[in-house]
Amino acid sequence: MKSVKVVRVGHRYVRDYRTLTHLCLVSRALGAEAIYLEEVEKELKDTVADVNRTWGGDFAVIEERWKKVFQDAKAEGRAIVHLTMYGTPLQEKIAELRKRDSFLLVVGGPKVPGEVYKLSDYNIAVTSQPHSEIAALAITVHDLQKGEELKKVFGDYKLRIVPSAKGKQVEQKS
Amino acid sequence: MKSVKVVRVGHRYVRDYRTLTHLCLVSRALGAEAIYLEEVEKELKDTVADVNRTWGGDFAVIEERWKKVFQDAKAEGRAIVHLTMYGTPLQEKIAELRKRDSFLLVVGGPKVPGEVYKLSDYNIAVTSQPHSEIAALAITVHDLQKGEELKKVFGDYKLRIVPSAKGKQVEQKS
Repeated sequence: MKSVKVVRVGHRYVRDYRTLTHLCLVSRALGAEAIYLEEVEKELKDTVADVNRTWGGDFAVIEERWKKVFQDAKAEGRAIVHLTMYGTPLQEKIAELRKRDSFLLVVGGPKVPGEVYKLSDYNIAVTSQPHSEIAALAITVHDLQKGEELKKVFGDYKLRIVPSAKGKQVEQKS
Repeated sequence: MKSVKVVRVGHRYVRDYRTLTHLCLVSRALGAEAIYLEEVEKELKDTVADVNRTWGGDFAVIEERWKKVFQDAKAEGRAIVHLTMYGTPLQEKIAELRKRDSFLLVVGGPKVPGEVYKLSDYNIAVTSQPHSEIAALAITVHDLQKGEELKKVFGDYKLRIVPSAKGKQVEQKS
């Protein structure tokens, strides 16, 4: 599996709480190591901590300015990939991206500063239509990891789902 | 391209407005024909109509009870695929699903009635971890369509994005 970190640029906390929660949980479920946000409210931190405690793993939510996150990513040799409807289609760049081993995926929205486009190594579009940074992130990780991320096993869980054709089956760790 | 319709079961409008908007726009951007909701507020309908007018296509948001949507889907021969963290892993069923030509994808949440599990042809998990119905829908469509959905061209648009490695380029239809 490739190493993936995620950074969200330019959100407004109050309006975006549910979107932010989705972004955090998608990043975790698809095997990212951490998400960086400009502001981490206690409620969000608690939600993710609860999910880790119950379902396993050590996904991190970290408060940090995006410019610092970009600098650290460059220092670590990560490819910085900004997901934007204005970018180059994912399907045209995926082969090139897959040559890299570690990534910082950048999600934003309409109010992303112009600098983000310049400082990113790639500006990538998951369709050139308006939709959702949650979906764009999910499809990008899925293609980068070639679906391997769906098989990730989370360590140190309390509950684990036993896949089931009909209904719900959950196993408690003894 | 395979024919895809989407239905959302059991949402609560007020709390979920942003999530619903994401679901509608993701469905449209990834080439679905319509989304069915139990309740369509004017604000949401207007948002999607604006996107269609500006960016093209005729994606529909339709108010209908989910049981009626299921009945119609069965009559049309669609595979009814309920996306749930409790289901069978997507990667184990994708080859079988791809043999079908048309789909009703069902997204819900924790409060989905038990009947949905029974009346669906497939209960499919995009990871067995809690995350986001928006991401689960995106990855499922992407795998069903083998990425072809990313190339969809929307007819009758006013604005079109010209993909760009750096910055934003938008073309107005003359």
